[in-house]
Amino acid sequence: MTELKILKLPEDKAREIADKLWYRHIDNTVVAVVQDYETREVLMVAYMNREAVIKTLTTGLAHFWSTTRKKLWLKGETSGNYQYVIEFRIDCDRDAVLLLVKPAGPACHLGYRSCFDAEKISPA
Amino acid sequence: MTELKILKLPEDKAREIADKLWYRHIDNTVVAVVQDYETREVLMVAYMNREAVIKTLTTGLAHFWSTTRKKLWLKGETSGNYQYVIEFRIDCDRDAVLLLVKPAGPACHLGYRSCFDAEKISPA
Repeated sequence: MTELKILKLPEDKAREIADKLWYRHIDNTVVAVVQDYETREVLMVAYMNREAVIKTLTTGLAHFWSTTRKKLWLKGETSGNYQYVIEFRIDCDRDAVLLLVKPAGPACHLGYRSCFDAEKISPA
Repeated sequence: MTELKILKLPEDKAREIADKLWYRHIDNTVVAVVQDYETREVLMVAYMNREAVIKTLTTGLAHFWSTTRKKLWLKGETSGNYQYVIEFRIDCDRDAVLLLVKPAGPACHLGYRSCFDAEKISPA
């Protein structure tokens, strides 16, 4: 197994990337999809405003904008289940990003590895 | 390689699932993440309203709500790049879904397999 390298950028480079995005969603955000870098499981989906993008890129830890609590949110702040960012992708219309992460623990507050483990519907 | 079975539900079952979701995003939608069932690539992210959820579950073809054109949108309608739904997952707070699909062609209008192939930032 190879050592995963965390993405941590200088402030100016982070700002340059943050400035490219189109914050067209609720509270001036982009949609952020979080995927496990190793297993490729989709772990969760959330929103990021410009500040969350910059914090994520400069610290290497996933930060989001909580649209219910109306504040910046460091994933793992209370649970310890941080998400270390390995790769950051931007979609074709720049209103969504994909974070490839190494999670320190379950993404879901219910204890599931992925928030999408809650209910799965497949053909009978 | 095993044959993939497309998820196609009767109308009443589709409505029952659609009624469970929390359409809290723009234009009364849930966020929909689309992932390739086989390669596990994240292909795109979009929104689905109740009608798009029901159409998707009853036809087995991914449908979304276009927040820019303000209309129902069958993915592949013009390009032929339909997304056949193999599995449908609901997240823990029921405001996001994950579609595991077999794509008939590129997800991205720029010709990329994934909309997130546009720009990738990883450690130097």
